[in-house]
Amino acid sequence: MKIIRFLTTQNEPLAGVLQDDGTIERLRGDLFGQLETTGQILRPEQIQYLLPPVIPPNIFALGLNYREHARETDAAIPKAPLIFIKATTSLTAHRCPILLPQAAPDEVDYEAELVIVIKKTARRVSLNEAPNYILGYTCGNDVTARDCQKRIDRQWARSKSFDTFAPTGPVLETELDPGNLRIRSFRNGQLMQDSTTADLIFSVPQIVSTLSHNFTLLPGTLIFTGTPPGVGAARRPPVFLRSGDTIAVEIEGIGRLENTVRTDQPTATD
Amino acid sequence: MKIIRFLTTQNEPLAGVLQDDGTIERLRGDLFGQLETTGQILRPEQIQYLLPPVIPPNIFALGLNYREHARETDAAIPKAPLIFIKATTSLTAHRCPILLPQAAPDEVDYEAELVIVIKKTARRVSLNEAPNYILGYTCGNDVTARDCQKRIDRQWARSKSFDTFAPTGPVLETELDPGNLRIRSFRNGQLMQDSTTADLIFSVPQIVSTLSHNFTLLPGTLIFTGTPPGVGAARRPPVFLRSGDTIAVEIEGIGRLENTVRTDQPTATD
Repeated sequence: MKIIRFLTTQNEPLAGVLQDDGTIERLRGDLFGQLETTGQILRPEQIQYLLPPVIPPNIFALGLNYREHARETDAAIPKAPLIFIKATTSLTAHRCPILLPQAAPDEVDYEAELVIVIKKTARRVSLNEAPNYILGYTCGNDVTARDCQKRIDRQWARSKSFDTFAPTGPVLETELDPGNLRIRSFRNGQLMQDSTTADLIFSVPQIVSTLSHNFTLLPGTLIFTGTPPGVGAARRPPVFLRSGDTIAVEIEGIGRLENTVRTDQPTATD
Repeated sequence: MKIIRFLTTQNEPLAGVLQDDGTIERLRGDLFGQLETTGQILRPEQIQYLLPPVIPPNIFALGLNYREHARETDAAIPKAPLIFIKATTSLTAHRCPILLPQAAPDEVDYEAELVIVIKKTARRVSLNEAPNYILGYTCGNDVTARDCQKRIDRQWARSKSFDTFAPTGPVLETELDPGNLRIRSFRNGQLMQDSTTADLIFSVPQIVSTLSHNFTLLPGTLIFTGTPPGVGAARRPPVFLRSGDTIAVEIEGIGRLENTVRTDQPTATD
């Protein structure tokens, strides 16, 4: 089932099922509990804009989790998941702008990622049980300011958590085997990353089980699972995002997440 | 005003004002909006336990923000705040146990910290305006697994975010000049840290202004402002927390946060 969340033209936040013909059937209930179809079909003109699939209590993320991406960045293959945290305020929706932050506008990079959405509270769950704690999968872009990440800051926190640095959605696919999905990114229509989740060093069940042995994963927690090769910083010459660029993430069986890039405008008090 | 949040014996989460005589006057309304005193005094036996002062959307934290602590860890004085993020699930309350995580039980350390609580959405606020965005101050313990932080992990995310690694509270003091407050920690009654917030490298207004230029700070955001010298890892020989230990953080004009340490028990599925 492909679930999307959206704001209606009446400013009502709703969830619905995206159907094969492109229409949306309204859902009633709780994404993390009982969810019912209603038979009510919404017309495209009733939808104001799409929302992120969930409002997460935490966003966890993995670094260097594709073999070929670890190679392109000259990093050793990690023996355990390289875990970091993105601030929940970095979340943004499909078609919302990625803002080049005033503090670090010059080396902003894209990272196409499969994102896990947690269904129910997970604490120390085994590899076999892990799939039962997953609500579904969505597309994510782990946007990163490479200058902060590599040269300016001691920790990745800031480089990965500027406002709008976690575009996520729009589709939450609840029935999907994540083991071998084609994952691609496009910058202004040009293919930048093209890989498969079969190249993941730590698989989806391994990620959920491992994280759940370190942290309690609450319903709605997002887990960015790492990016395949082809990021801008690893190219010669490097490619960084500029105002006006469009960056899209496409994952087989899920959908397409697209965002345009803009300069963050100064405010009156700056 | 000293605000505390608590669960009544009727399982009702309430806020109240802690008065000089130790009684609690119930508050009505919204911590981030209109808050009114009610005249209703609660008896101690009506309170089941204390809650953290807020449920934060994000927990930001600073490393190496006391001159003397930077020296004891042989680190250079940072030129800009060293920012990291703690998962919101690491939050725990006064008198709740700090759990030694199964993944890293051996080098768990305490860090007494002044914690800022954000009042209203702050984005790119100036140094002068910063105090208007602060609801108040509370005590925090930035518990850290030193083995993960220093040797095992690439990022600090896990070492600082195991469940229960952010004891916070119980008192939220809304009228206080944070510029020169005595801050101490005690392990089993013995003084471990004894400093003053006057030794902060980046002051409270600088921290709020700087963070707000990188991230939108939502109401209820917690900011751990760094720890003074005397942490366990910097002692010779090192002192780490063991099951049964009690660790207390005391800040002048705010109060005392106390937690006991326990081993995290295996579950049936481990």
